Amino acid sequence: MQAPGAVQGPAAVQAPGAVQAPEALSRVSSVVVPALLAAVERLDPSLHGAVHHHLAGGGKHVRAALVLISAASVGGSEDDAMPGAVAVELVHNYSLLHDDIIDGDRERRHRPAVWAEFGEGVAIVAGDALAALAMQVLLDAPTASRTEATKRLAWANQAMISGQSADMDFEARPRVTVEECLAMERGKTGALLSAASAIGAVLGGADRQTADALGEYGEHLGIAFQAVDDLLGVWGDPAVTGKPVGADLLARKKALPVAIAFERGGEVADELAAVFSRPPEAGEVDRATRLLERAGVHDAVTAIADEHLRAALAALDRVDLEDEPKEELVEVARYVTARDR
Amino acid sequence: MQAPGAVQGPAAVQAPGAVQAPEALSRVSSVVVPALLAAVERLDPSLHGAVHHHLAGGGKHVRAALVLISAASVGGSEDDAMPGAVAVELVHNYSLLHDDIIDGDRERRHRPAVWAEFGEGVAIVAGDALAALAMQVLLDAPTASRTEATKRLAWANQAMISGQSADMDFEARPRVTVEECLAMERGKTGALLSAASAIGAVLGGADRQTADALGEYGEHLGIAFQAVDDLLGVWGDPAVTGKPVGADLLARKKALPVAIAFERGGEVADELAAVFSRPPEAGEVDRATRLLERAGVHDAVTAIADEHLRAALAALDRVDLEDEPKEELVEVARYVTARDR
Repeated sequence: MQAPGAVQGPAAVQAPGAVQAPEALSRVSSVVVPALLAAVERLDPSLHGAVHHHLAGGGKHVRAALVLISAASVGGSEDDAMPGAVAVELVHNYSLLHDDIIDGDRERRHRPAVWAEFGEGVAIVAGDALAALAMQVLLDAPTASRTEATKRLAWANQAMISGQSADMDFEARPRVTVEECLAMERGKTGALLSAASAIGAVLGGADRQTADALGEYGEHLGIAFQAVDDLLGVWGDPAVTGKPVGADLLARKKALPVAIAFERGGEVADELAAVFSRPPEAGEVDRATRLLERAGVHDAVTAIADEHLRAALAALDRVDLEDEPKEELVEVARYVTARDR
Repeated sequence: MQAPGAVQGPAAVQAPGAVQAPEALSRVSSVVVPALLAAVERLDPSLHGAVHHHLAGGGKHVRAALVLISAASVGGSEDDAMPGAVAVELVHNYSLLHDDIIDGDRERRHRPAVWAEFGEGVAIVAGDALAALAMQVLLDAPTASRTEATKRLAWANQAMISGQSADMDFEARPRVTVEECLAMERGKTGALLSAASAIGAVLGGADRQTADALGEYGEHLGIAFQAVDDLLGVWGDPAVTGKPVGADLLARKKALPVAIAFERGGEVADELAAVFSRPPEAGEVDRATRLLERAGVHDAVTAIADEHLRAALAALDRVDLEDEPKEELVEVARYVTARDR
C-alpha cells in the first residue's frame, strides 16, 4: 500500500507537486470575472448582496477557461465565446448555491455559504436567478450558434441535476455499484465540463464533429476530476481541502472509493457496511480508510482518474485544433486532475 | 364599508358567483396534463416520485390555457403551441416547489408540499429539474419561433424571480409603497402570464405587434389576478382559500392592502405599523382587518383589479384576433379575476 502522496501515475499524469496552475487559468479569470460581474448587474437589486458575496469567494473558473480555450482551439474569438463562458460559470455557481443548502455545507471557499449568511430562501432564489441569467446571456442575440450553445447548456444542466439527485438518492441506499457511481459523476461533474468545451467550439464556429470531440474531452476530464475529488474526500490533506480528514466517509457519501470496496465484496465490504450502518465517529473513519486501502481502492480510483484523463487527451487528438490552445487544454486537464491541487 | 361578498364590480367585472369555469380551461387541462406527464418522464428516475406527487395536486393550467388559446387566436395550431404550454407550466411548477420551501408552506392544494413530504433537498433539485426541462422542451427542435419563445420564457423567469426576491425583501422592511408592491406583483405573477400569452402568439406565427399585445393582456391579467389574490389573503373565506382568516396579515405580508393603507398614512397607518411591529395574534388580525376596511383599502384593491382587467381586455381589442379564441381569452380573464374563485 502506498501513501497517497507517493502515488506515481502513468506517463499521462504528472506526479503531485509537479503541476503548476496554467497561465491560461489566470488569464481567463482576468477577463471572465468582469464579464460575470457585469452580467449579475442585471439581477434584481435585492439579490446583489448574496450574489456578490458568493462570487467574491473566487474560484478557478475552469469551466469558463474550457469555453474560451476551446473556442480559440477552433480559431474562434474570445468575444464570440464570452457569453458561453459567462453562462457556464453562472450555471456552475447556481448549482453551488443550491448544493450547499442540500448538503448542509455552511462554508464555501473558507467563507460562509450564501444560505448560512443570507438564509435558505435567498440562496434558493439567488441560484434560480443565476440559472435563468445563464439562458439570458446566451439568448440576448440568438444566433444559430448561440441557440445551439443554449441547447447544449440546458441539456448539461439537466444531466447535472440528475447527477445531484442520484447522489442524494444514494444516501438512502445501503450500497451502489461502480457503474451507478460513475454514471452519477458523469452527470454531476462531467456534463457541465463537457458542455463548456463543446459550447466553446460551437461559438468558435466549429463543425459538429469537432464540437462533439471537445465535448468528449470535457466529459472525460470531468469524470477524472471527480475521481480525484473522491480520492481527496477520503485521503485529502485537511489543510489543502479545507475539510476534515475522511470528510466523505464521515458524511457516508457513496462516491467511487466506497462503491469500489462494496463491489469487491468479501470481508472488507462487510466491515465497511457495518461502519456505514450508522453515522460513523472519527475513529471509525480511520478504520474505514484502512479497510479501503486494504482493498486496494486508492489505486483503483487513481486508475479510473488516469484512464479518463487519457481518454480526454485522446479526444483532442481526434480533431484538428490550433496548437497553442490545444496545449493549454492539455495543461488545464493535467492541472485539475493533479492530486495535490 | 361593504362586506366583501357584496362588492359590486364595474361592468367589466362580473359579480361573484356569476363566473363559471370556462370550458376552455378543462379542455386545455385534458390535453396539457398528458403532455406534461410525458415531459417529466425525461427527468432522472430519482425525481419521479416527488414530481408526480406535486403534479397530482392538479391545478387549473391557466398558463397553458393562455398559450394554447393565444396561439388559436392568431390562427396557430395546438401542436405548434404545445411545447410552449408545457414549458410555461413547468416554469410555474418549479416556482411553486421553491416558493413553498421559502414561505415554509407545508401544504399545496390541500396535500403535503414536496419539501414537507420528500425533504427540502429533493424539492430544490426537483424545481431545478423542471426549470431546466422547460428550456429543453422548447429547444428540442429550435425553430426561430421556438427560440423566440425560449427567450421570452427566460426573461419572464428572471422577472418572476425578481418579484419573488422583492417580496422576500419586503418582509424585512417596515413598509413598502404601492408602486413597489405593484412592481413586485408585475414580476411575481404578471411576467409569466404575459410570457404565456405572448409565447402562444409567437408559436402560432403572429407578428411581434400581435405577440406584444397578447403579452400585455397577460401582464395586466396577472396583476389583476394578484390583486384579487391579495383581497383573498385578507378577506378570503378559509373554506375557499384553504388558508386561515387574514392569512396574509398573520404572515405580515406586504401585499397591496397593507401598502395602500401605509400610503394613505394617518392614524390607520400608525396603528397598522404597531400591529405589524411583531408577529400578530389572531385578535390583532381582526383589528388590522378593520383598520384596512376603515381606510377604504378593500375598495381600492378592487379598483386596481378592475383597472387591470379592463386594460387586459383592451389589449385584446388592439389587434386582430379570431373571434372564438378571443372570447375564450375574455372568459378566462373574467374567471381568474373573479373574487369567489
